[in-house]
Amino acid sequence: MKKHYLLAPGPTPVPERALLAMAAPMIHHRTPQFSAIFKEAAQLLKYVFQTENDVLILASSGTGAMEGSIVNFFSPGDEVLAINGGKFGERWGQISEKYGLKVHWIKVEWGDAVSSAAVKEVLDANPAIKAVLCQASETSTTVQHPIEEIAALTKDRETLCIVDGITAVGVADMPIDKWGVDIMVSGSQKAFMLPPGLAFASISEKAWKFNESATCPRYYFDFAKERKNLGKDTSAYTPAASLIIGLREILLMIKEEGLENTFKRHDRLARAARAAMEALGMKLLAPKSPSFATTGVYVPEGVDGAKFVKYMRDTMGVTMAGGQDHLKGKIFRIAHLGFVDTFDMIIAISTIEMALTKFGAKIEMGKGVAAAQKILIEGFE
Amino acid sequence: MKKHYLLAPGPTPVPERALLAMAAPMIHHRTPQFSAIFKEAAQLLKYVFQTENDVLILASSGTGAMEGSIVNFFSPGDEVLAINGGKFGERWGQISEKYGLKVHWIKVEWGDAVSSAAVKEVLDANPAIKAVLCQASETSTTVQHPIEEIAALTKDRETLCIVDGITAVGVADMPIDKWGVDIMVSGSQKAFMLPPGLAFASISEKAWKFNESATCPRYYFDFAKERKNLGKDTSAYTPAASLIIGLREILLMIKEEGLENTFKRHDRLARAARAAMEALGMKLLAPKSPSFATTGVYVPEGVDGAKFVKYMRDTMGVTMAGGQDHLKGKIFRIAHLGFVDTFDMIIAISTIEMALTKFGAKIEMGKGVAAAQKILIEGFE
Repeated sequence: MKKHYLLAPGPTPVPERALLAMAAPMIHHRTPQFSAIFKEAAQLLKYVFQTENDVLILASSGTGAMEGSIVNFFSPGDEVLAINGGKFGERWGQISEKYGLKVHWIKVEWGDAVSSAAVKEVLDANPAIKAVLCQASETSTTVQHPIEEIAALTKDRETLCIVDGITAVGVADMPIDKWGVDIMVSGSQKAFMLPPGLAFASISEKAWKFNESATCPRYYFDFAKERKNLGKDTSAYTPAASLIIGLREILLMIKEEGLENTFKRHDRLARAARAAMEALGMKLLAPKSPSFATTGVYVPEGVDGAKFVKYMRDTMGVTMAGGQDHLKGKIFRIAHLGFVDTFDMIIAISTIEMALTKFGAKIEMGKGVAAAQKILIEGFE
Repeated sequence: MKKHYLLAPGPTPVPERALLAMAAPMIHHRTPQFSAIFKEAAQLLKYVFQTENDVLILASSGTGAMEGSIVNFFSPGDEVLAINGGKFGERWGQISEKYGLKVHWIKVEWGDAVSSAAVKEVLDANPAIKAVLCQASETSTTVQHPIEEIAALTKDRETLCIVDGITAVGVADMPIDKWGVDIMVSGSQKAFMLPPGLAFASISEKAWKFNESATCPRYYFDFAKERKNLGKDTSAYTPAASLIIGLREILLMIKEEGLENTFKRHDRLARAARAAMEALGMKLLAPKSPSFATTGVYVPEGVDGAKFVKYMRDTMGVTMAGGQDHLKGKIFRIAHLGFVDTFDMIIAISTIEMALTKFGAKIEMGKGVAAAQKILIEGFE
């Protein structure tokens, strides 16, 4: 008998309350009963997104909402600026290119955040740019980008600020209406603590104006059609009903915790993870602007990162993520978003300590745990 | 205390076995553990689709798979033929037009099936047509279209036969490889007895050839990318993991029943529903070519169809579907697909009898049930 722990930057563990709600017998999605659930979820989503704007609910992975955030607001030939500092930043530009947009790229070293000065420079030099495409938290590099500063740059231009908040919404304080973020995208399997299969997109009035003249083709991801249906407490096409039933439970849980406390919890866990790794003498991937959702750590010299992650998962029962693309085998990522708390961090850090010892790394077991505890104890009154 | 029964043409009830599997703690989708589940589901899907072709698994509603079946195989300006005999036939043409295809329409009266002679005539007159787009079972009109005959027409032409089998796959015998159906689409909430959120698409080699030169833009629904990932037992973007875990259970259940028996069960239930309605003197919507998945019935003169369906649902606890678009308030639909058996039909028919009596229709209670029983008893050895 072995217990299993899921500490990857999505999916996160799903709370029993949501699992049970989703395991109830199926109900029809075109009924007053389901519409009431849908309506409540849509309202609560605004609270978690910190917005007065409509938040669309889509049956797709987060990538679908990213695609929708391009095709509903632009036309072939339009210019956009993509911040490419990781796998998901690259995706923004790739989607745009597929639909015939002209992409300006800012290439950022993996592990670094983009500087808003660099964004300003490109925007000043290219006034035709209609959108800046960015990640709030670039999951692949565990970096936090300066969204507030970027949004400030687009606010008074005819430019949209479009943000992938897939591992950011519900994790850190991002008052998007105040900042002027026009589109914020997220997904169910991150801070929303659900299985994958739902994506969300919050759209500002400024963005809806762009929608009126956008000619990129779209059908399934037709946001204007979704907005119209949202007003009738439903979705344009068959909703992923069981996930939406789970979503309502999750949103009620977040409301009960209080968004402010949710942010504090995530911040505490993130600081604990970083402090622990530093106490062990490990090198962080993104020390300068670390993500609030996940912490990337280089495996020590001489340790095979792929084997290391596999050992933690298969032998120790603790699933963390490895690196993607050129970071494969070189890093592991401790996730601290979603349905995670103090003892998940203790488990993660003690797992890493024991696995490092097994792999022959010279570390002092318990030292990371102790450093984390000093921060985690803040959570107890 | 009141029991609730779901007898709509999707979603169907979800078997407890699948509900429980989906309620298990979340696992990560990029692990050998999930890949094994994904692989098994993908293999079993071929069995249910009766094909040697790859069957893609998408995180979307069925409409997403329909969109993918257009944008991956054609280019703006290409000509297609859409069989518009209901809400979903219309959708094929609408999607195609959104992407700049030239659509030839065959308009069919709601309740009638298209004649293959009419299809042949249009194909002969327009050799440039690259696809016939059709429904196997048009859910909105409870009609079965002659897919075998249509596929025979496209087989020796440079034309694809693309079929929406959303309420057909796993319901009736459709040997698509033998018939020459190039693309067959389905969705999780129908004969696959799951919550909505997954779509499937089986693609022939002939269709993949079209893919090579197709220029319609696509990103999330990029079938070539999905095919490549399917070969690695995964999906291009985050899969709707809990639904896929449920899918494996469902596919094992279908395998255990045996596809032949699944078809026989559905056929028996469909015949029982029709016999019952005829015994009660009710008028069928599609008497000539009825769907194997759902039976449309006109409400008698003087009965308000919308109120009638609402009464069955809210007072009697039995959810059936009403009519869509111009049939709203005029018909109701008895579904007999998915996780349904003998006594679901008995419940449906006795509900209708009692509700009709409540609404003042002159029918003899029990007469429909008796007519159904004579057919349903075939299911007991």
